[in-house]
Amino acid sequence: MGFSMDNMKGFILALLSSGFIGASFIIKKKGLRRAAAVSGVRAGVGGYYYLLEPLWWIGMITMIVGEAANFIAYAFAPAVLVTPLGALSIIVSAVLAHFILKEKLHHLGILGCVMCIAGSVVIVIHAPQERAITSVQEIWNLATQTAFLLYVASVIVLVFVLIFHFAPRYGHSNVLIFTGICSLMGSLSVMSVKAVGTSLKLTFEGMNQLVYPQTWFFMLVVLTCVIMQLNYLNKALDTFNTAIVSPIYYVMFTTLTILASVIMFKDWDGQSVGSIISEICGFIVVLSGTILLHSTKDYERSPSRSIYPPLLHCAADAELLKHVDDDIQSSEEFCLRVQ
Amino acid sequence: MGFSMDNMKGFILALLSSGFIGASFIIKKKGLRRAAAVSGVRAGVGGYYYLLEPLWWIGMITMIVGEAANFIAYAFAPAVLVTPLGALSIIVSAVLAHFILKEKLHHLGILGCVMCIAGSVVIVIHAPQERAITSVQEIWNLATQTAFLLYVASVIVLVFVLIFHFAPRYGHSNVLIFTGICSLMGSLSVMSVKAVGTSLKLTFEGMNQLVYPQTWFFMLVVLTCVIMQLNYLNKALDTFNTAIVSPIYYVMFTTLTILASVIMFKDWDGQSVGSIISEICGFIVVLSGTILLHSTKDYERSPSRSIYPPLLHCAADAELLKHVDDDIQSSEEFCLRVQ
Repeated sequence: MGFSMDNMKGFILALLSSGFIGASFIIKKKGLRRAAAVSGVRAGVGGYYYLLEPLWWIGMITMIVGEAANFIAYAFAPAVLVTPLGALSIIVSAVLAHFILKEKLHHLGILGCVMCIAGSVVIVIHAPQERAITSVQEIWNLATQTAFLLYVASVIVLVFVLIFHFAPRYGHSNVLIFTGICSLMGSLSVMSVKAVGTSLKLTFEGMNQLVYPQTWFFMLVVLTCVIMQLNYLNKALDTFNTAIVSPIYYVMFTTLTILASVIMFKDWDGQSVGSIISEICGFIVVLSGTILLHSTKDYERSPSRSIYPPLLHCAADAELLKHVDDDIQSSEEFCLRVQ
Repeated sequence: MGFSMDNMKGFILALLSSGFIGASFIIKKKGLRRAAAVSGVRAGVGGYYYLLEPLWWIGMITMIVGEAANFIAYAFAPAVLVTPLGALSIIVSAVLAHFILKEKLHHLGILGCVMCIAGSVVIVIHAPQERAITSVQEIWNLATQTAFLLYVASVIVLVFVLIFHFAPRYGHSNVLIFTGICSLMGSLSVMSVKAVGTSLKLTFEGMNQLVYPQTWFFMLVVLTCVIMQLNYLNKALDTFNTAIVSPIYYVMFTTLTILASVIMFKDWDGQSVGSIISEICGFIVVLSGTILLHSTKDYERSPSRSIYPPLLHCAADAELLKHVDDDIQSSEEFCLRVQ
């Protein structure tokens, strides 16, 4: 366990990022609620009044700050450390939702939070040291080693097969198609984000990397991958419930990103078997915590599994609930509005 | 991470122990079911026909073998390693119940199993090396160091206060009283079991320890503590639901045992901060997994929280269920018999 200064910076940035992103959901939701209260029309059923609501914009800015912090974190610490910590944003939003939006956090949800934290601690303790990179060409060499090129090639082939063969046939019945495309592209975008981030970091430190074509190539890759990722994430969210898409996406995306990072940056070289196994276990624990948080969130929503008897009278609205943008309201609020 | 031969032996024995104890629950339950089918009277309502059922006795023997393996495990490996692995017996019985008794395992229960395993792996990887002990007098010296004597004194004072002040007043309304007494005594019995186990191990290796009065003193302590522990565990189980008692007891017992072991055997001396934190996280994860398994088991039982709609028709029997020895039947079986 050697926790370098750079790992520490990356770790703190990742924490800040999770804090901002987690808070942004709550602020946006509060903005949406307020907009719905003023206009009487919900975003989920076609209203755009929320664009006039300052709170929604504050939430949007908080989110952008969070994503930026996440981006910079990748320049300092290995993806094996930064990516799983993204789960902490779920905790932040669950806890804030409990106190600010007064959405009840199920006791198993609290357990999920505890697990995410315990798993994150194990990951942080065993995170590998990043090798010091002094130029974008070094990253280029890492990205063009045979093993990583093979990974990139298989990702591209898989994505093509998914887009042109599976998506038209099963995209709307199987949740794994769209989320799979997102996750595969996501692992490439994180790797190129890391390359761009490191180049910018070096440039700010006085070693200008913008003169190298590789820097611009990586920027192009980031742009392409992120746009594809957003596009298919939207398709997935349009087709399936957020409560189903989020954990599946998180699991696939994080797993593939760690795989890509391990292949490209050889994160696990020189680490003891014990550390690697601990990291994997920590990762499994964080995943389980995330799944638990999401499943129990579902209990509150879906009346057939409801744990809170007062919500049982919403049973008739179960079908309706599915069709309303489920990011926007808790079922309590929904019940109030329907009756 | 140094995994010594003795740690390995203790680890394997602890695994075997969990396997036997987990299986014993299932065998006993099958025996009880068969006895109830033959006699028409359940153990929970006063029948003792199960004593004529060979399957029940096989289960009892399996359990004794498991407890013996656990006992020997303590002679080889530190309590910090052996005690948390006890949670694996819950997994064994949950998995066997799924396949043999056809009790459905809730999907969150599976998540609980995964967590118990991941947490156990982290604990095993970071388990401290036990110092080699060559005589019972060495253990005696460890047991009579000031720090451990202070621990023993506070345990005894606490137990007295709980028994004579709190038990008569709140014992039947607060689940923490009886389970607290059990757990406090339990931490002392594990320490003395470890002393007796080590003495017997040394005796078998040719260094007779039975000539020392300390060995007999530790045996006396084991006997006293175990009897008190069983007595108050029975009281707790008589008064409260198994589903509530088990996880609370497991959490308190394991925490106090680890605390006692760390004080007496100085398990954490010479370990890195990272290893200690990892162990604690692993322990928290195992605890969370256990709680999750128990909570979701509860979902199947209590109709108001039921996840399986077919069980909803048992709602009227909810009150009855509480009064029947709930170790004995799954709610499905209960429904079949009541209607």
